[in-house]
Amino acid sequence: MSVFNFSAGPAVLPAAVLERAQNELVKYGDSGVSVMEMSHRSAEFIDVAERAEASLRRLLNISDDYAVLFMSGGATMQFAMVPINLSAPGDTIAIVNTGQWSTKAVKEGQRFANVHVAASSESDGFCSVPAFDSWDVPADSAYLHYTPNETIGGVEFHFVPDVAGDIPLVADMSSTILSRPVDVNRFGVIYAGAQKNIGPAGITIGIVRKDLLERARDDAPSLFKYKAYADSGSMINTPPTFPWYMAGLVFEWLEERGGVAEMARINEAKAGRLYSAIDSSGGFYANPVAPDARSWMNVPFTIHDESLTDAFLAQSSAAGLVQLKGHRSVGGMRASIYNAMPDEGVDALIAFMSDFAARNG
Amino acid sequence: MSVFNFSAGPAVLPAAVLERAQNELVKYGDSGVSVMEMSHRSAEFIDVAERAEASLRRLLNISDDYAVLFMSGGATMQFAMVPINLSAPGDTIAIVNTGQWSTKAVKEGQRFANVHVAASSESDGFCSVPAFDSWDVPADSAYLHYTPNETIGGVEFHFVPDVAGDIPLVADMSSTILSRPVDVNRFGVIYAGAQKNIGPAGITIGIVRKDLLERARDDAPSLFKYKAYADSGSMINTPPTFPWYMAGLVFEWLEERGGVAEMARINEAKAGRLYSAIDSSGGFYANPVAPDARSWMNVPFTIHDESLTDAFLAQSSAAGLVQLKGHRSVGGMRASIYNAMPDEGVDALIAFMSDFAARNG
Repeated sequence: MSVFNFSAGPAVLPAAVLERAQNELVKYGDSGVSVMEMSHRSAEFIDVAERAEASLRRLLNISDDYAVLFMSGGATMQFAMVPINLSAPGDTIAIVNTGQWSTKAVKEGQRFANVHVAASSESDGFCSVPAFDSWDVPADSAYLHYTPNETIGGVEFHFVPDVAGDIPLVADMSSTILSRPVDVNRFGVIYAGAQKNIGPAGITIGIVRKDLLERARDDAPSLFKYKAYADSGSMINTPPTFPWYMAGLVFEWLEERGGVAEMARINEAKAGRLYSAIDSSGGFYANPVAPDARSWMNVPFTIHDESLTDAFLAQSSAAGLVQLKGHRSVGGMRASIYNAMPDEGVDALIAFMSDFAARNG
Repeated sequence: MSVFNFSAGPAVLPAAVLERAQNELVKYGDSGVSVMEMSHRSAEFIDVAERAEASLRRLLNISDDYAVLFMSGGATMQFAMVPINLSAPGDTIAIVNTGQWSTKAVKEGQRFANVHVAASSESDGFCSVPAFDSWDVPADSAYLHYTPNETIGGVEFHFVPDVAGDIPLVADMSSTILSRPVDVNRFGVIYAGAQKNIGPAGITIGIVRKDLLERARDDAPSLFKYKAYADSGSMINTPPTFPWYMAGLVFEWLEERGGVAEMARINEAKAGRLYSAIDSSGGFYANPVAPDARSWMNVPFTIHDESLTDAFLAQSSAAGLVQLKGHRSVGGMRASIYNAMPDEGVDALIAFMSDFAARNG
């Protein structure tokens, strides 16, 4: 039986990438050893590392004005690293709050600066993106932070904010990076934990405009300074080498598939079919998100009769559609359909949903 | 040709562990998905995580008085986390300096507290362990930190310091953990980056006495607080799941091999044979470390005629003895012979050294 994995993260990886990693797991190339056993300073691993960076730069068209960093600690570490690198104590930082992840960014940011919530969709249960013309971004903000895709709520920005003046725009792209083209030049910092659209958990990508590298607080831990990563090829100390290697394989796979423009076409179509199935279910299924803010990556949905949820989850799992349970804070179902989720997986889910509704309608 | 990998870290992994990981890389157990693709909160991964912790607790006989933490960032992150968790600004922290890694602990520690160097072997080029009765540990020290094995210098403590009063003892065991039995109850904190004796790079083990969990500074980043890891099963956010899984496989392998007492017997014998080969080479090879401080894990050595170093490295590598180059700061050779280095690897190196000396003597 085919298994399709809708986990929100760690998430499905491309089958071709997993098979390649399996083939070369014990002996990588001519090295005679596993990629996991190589010194990070060996010529073989430096090649792995540099090819991964070069591939990511091609995929997102990242110019030399930006450093590409390979870090650890996920978005949660970035919630502290961004204010430590881009603001001084007492500075104002502006954050748009569209759900649980941006709420975490607010809370952690408050430990290091004065957080001004520039806009929030809390009043509608985080089911929309606040209209851009309603945002209140103080002119002296050290930066403006937002979360282009909220993994838990399934809320996505389908525009990039046009920030006035020279306020750097910072984006937590953990669950949307590489799902579509993005103009990196509009951002000060982009960061993303790997475990959704990049690779296995344990590595975090940063794309940092180089003129921002000099702003870090002097008293920060050494591993908190973007500049230390930029100056050392992200090898201040031993980096997470295997997750880095896996990220490189995923980048290569994306390039072979036609890059992010092609992924955008596929992702929009996949998400479109799934939302259509929900919307055309005659109210059996529902997604609470405003249509112009629906995520291409994470599709939460509920059943009109909540008591059917457990049956849906048990039967879908038995049919090979796994990890569909909604986040523990939300309930219901959530289908995460990242780049690596094939069309067949989405179509199998839609077919199951239709059948389940027919049997229980 | 067999390849034996003497890398100091990331380092050789047990062949049986790599083969098992390869076999189950694409589909783990009955899950239908890779262990890399599982939600860290899924029942399957929680089982992987808990079994790894239980195995480590058995191996080191860790009591319930200690929390076992799975973190990231390596020893370099711990150089900041330890003072942030165990001291207040202005406190004195005592550090024994026996080489490059403890020097880094001193430098990073100075960012967060007043470092008092309790003892140092700098004057003899970090080739010994300062006699314990010469150590000067201030009675008000927040803790005493030392590095039981210096990976670069090849200097190892063959005793555990008997600290007076209730000063917590903190040890960076990155390159010696699990190589021999240790009485965990004598320590406040033990930490270790995984990439030497535990698993692949990207995960860091902490063993923290529970009464020390409450001391962290309020203004620390959330991911810097030991207590946050202890309270969440090390799942504050998505942990590095694949390195965690691999660490668990290595722990199981160690248990199957007879545990750390048996590893100590094997390691002492392996190191003993290699030091004998150096010492009995009639001065062709030399190791600079005081005999009572020689490491079982990292054996640096030089050739009396330095100009032969490049030939040694090229020929040994061609013979399948790879990653023998000494640290860039030291030169010469370094053979790292962690738990996963089989007897055959050490014996092949000794045979090569003998042959090389005969051809170039």
